[in-house]
Amino acid sequence: VENYTIAVDAMGGDYGPCVTVPAVIKALADLPHVQIILVGNSNQITKILQKYHYNPCQLTIKHTTDVVMMNDLPAMALKYKTASSMRIAIDLVKTGQAEACVSAGNTGALLAISRYVLKTLPGIDRPAIIGSLFATAEQKNLQILDLGANVDMSAKNLYQFALMGSVLVSVVENITRPKVGLLNLDAVHPAANKIVQQTDALLASSTEINYCGLLTPQKIFSKDADLVVCDGFIGNIVLKVAEGSASYLQFLLKNNFKKYNWLTKITAILIDPLIQSVFKTISSDYCNGATLLGLQKIVVKSHGNAGVMGFTQAIKHATIQIEKKVLTQFAARLNNAP
Amino acid sequence: VENYTIAVDAMGGDYGPCVTVPAVIKALADLPHVQIILVGNSNQITKILQKYHYNPCQLTIKHTTDVVMMNDLPAMALKYKTASSMRIAIDLVKTGQAEACVSAGNTGALLAISRYVLKTLPGIDRPAIIGSLFATAEQKNLQILDLGANVDMSAKNLYQFALMGSVLVSVVENITRPKVGLLNLDAVHPAANKIVQQTDALLASSTEINYCGLLTPQKIFSKDADLVVCDGFIGNIVLKVAEGSASYLQFLLKNNFKKYNWLTKITAILIDPLIQSVFKTISSDYCNGATLLGLQKIVVKSHGNAGVMGFTQAIKHATIQIEKKVLTQFAARLNNAP
Repeated sequence: VENYTIAVDAMGGDYGPCVTVPAVIKALADLPHVQIILVGNSNQITKILQKYHYNPCQLTIKHTTDVVMMNDLPAMALKYKTASSMRIAIDLVKTGQAEACVSAGNTGALLAISRYVLKTLPGIDRPAIIGSLFATAEQKNLQILDLGANVDMSAKNLYQFALMGSVLVSVVENITRPKVGLLNLDAVHPAANKIVQQTDALLASSTEINYCGLLTPQKIFSKDADLVVCDGFIGNIVLKVAEGSASYLQFLLKNNFKKYNWLTKITAILIDPLIQSVFKTISSDYCNGATLLGLQKIVVKSHGNAGVMGFTQAIKHATIQIEKKVLTQFAARLNNAP
Repeated sequence: VENYTIAVDAMGGDYGPCVTVPAVIKALADLPHVQIILVGNSNQITKILQKYHYNPCQLTIKHTTDVVMMNDLPAMALKYKTASSMRIAIDLVKTGQAEACVSAGNTGALLAISRYVLKTLPGIDRPAIIGSLFATAEQKNLQILDLGANVDMSAKNLYQFALMGSVLVSVVENITRPKVGLLNLDAVHPAANKIVQQTDALLASSTEINYCGLLTPQKIFSKDADLVVCDGFIGNIVLKVAEGSASYLQFLLKNNFKKYNWLTKITAILIDPLIQSVFKTISSDYCNGATLLGLQKIVVKSHGNAGVMGFTQAIKHATIQIEKKVLTQFAARLNNAP
């Protein structure tokens, strides 16, 4: 295996270096051919590093004190936080010192800075975000795009993202011809929306994409598709409502089991690991790592609240994309596109 | 208690008279002061009625053979299905022969026909739909509007619906001053959307509404609010994704319990009723009956796939609104609105 380097924004996410540093150590142990540049406050980073054993040849620290905050406006972060850990990590990818960047920081800022610094692929105006919703029972993740904020995307753009997303799903999930579905709100009147109508036609005529047709929101979870395509506004709602209802149901289950008699209480104790295991499959610790699609380089976004296991997943997500040369595959597919 | 009459579209929904007729019998037994007119194919209706005991004074059949199909376009149903069970049931409300209409049929057609026949309240262009998402552990339902298809609603309209929704929630859920939240997609940048911004200002300045501020989609299920307000496009996605993820999680739970050793299998059998009870609270059989808000009369929409228990719930939902005189309360609130 070739050696390569990944730049990690050590300060991003809800927990910063407390999560990112142990996750990097864990990833490096599993991936001896990978080098990581930890970008962030070197005092904080080294303090945590001292607790771990690792191969020092695999790890570099790039010191910087500025940080993009979770509530920074993307445009402001782009303009003023040019010395932030997020920006420096992306710059390292631009200059070729790293092959990919991984960050758990502010999504809007990551999109804006990546787009500005790394540029988009020909014909694509803004990057989209592809990520997984719940993992299915067979451990295949359902992937959905766009989870970013691309409102008013053209049918051509949606089609391009479907092409790239298809490559990514086949690589990441190891599916030869992933089934691609197009989200449509209305089961009765297919494609009332004009963009959906046009995208549907483009996808249906494609030989590169294994298109399985329109999907209503109820059908997202039915495994009819490996990849669901929709615009960023809808994708965002889908993601957040799915997360919200899952944690609400977990709460309901726990509450119900507690409230009955001694038999149900004992059963609740017995069954708890099973319930945990089900809900673990849908947590950000299990399936984590969204990809900014349509950039000239690889940028992976970790869930802000991911723990060590989750952030390690996000790093590995980047390594798979580097090793399988997804960028070359994207370019080839886009060249063939209508 | 006063006597009054409800018109029931016997042919609507996935099961038609097989569900609506037994549900009507059940409702009448519980509500001796109510009369129901069953509108639909009298052959089919009487065949089912023969299996039940009921007080014939409470029940009338209005024969009609035409039916609005689930995939009829609303405009076509409005124009050509003037002798359908749905239309006749609504006409009965218009002419004062019934106080409310209950249907499990085509939502778009019900909206279009109700709007055309019954007219909207002053200042309101189209009716919205208010209904419950999951029932909470304490059996209070979380209500959400608009579940209809009102895209591009004005802030003023959203405010008017919030006023009426607030009345309805206080009546139906028996909450004195229901907490009203406004859905906002972005937790970081409050009210990026202009309509949300304006509605937020209107709600915040209202003395009639117990406004608790902006809610992100993840927070919908947190019980911070009794009523969540959003436009019909987003509301529709929220409803469908919540339904989809709930049934997906139920599937995951069942599958996981089956696959382990004999101990987990036994536990699974023991725990099954509890899981059922949790998922029952979120099924259309438990919390059913959405209301078309902003009309001059009462129209209740049952979930298309509701069973007998669910459709009975929808009928009772209509009776509460009649008895608590919600229409009078709506008018009073709207008169005071800015």
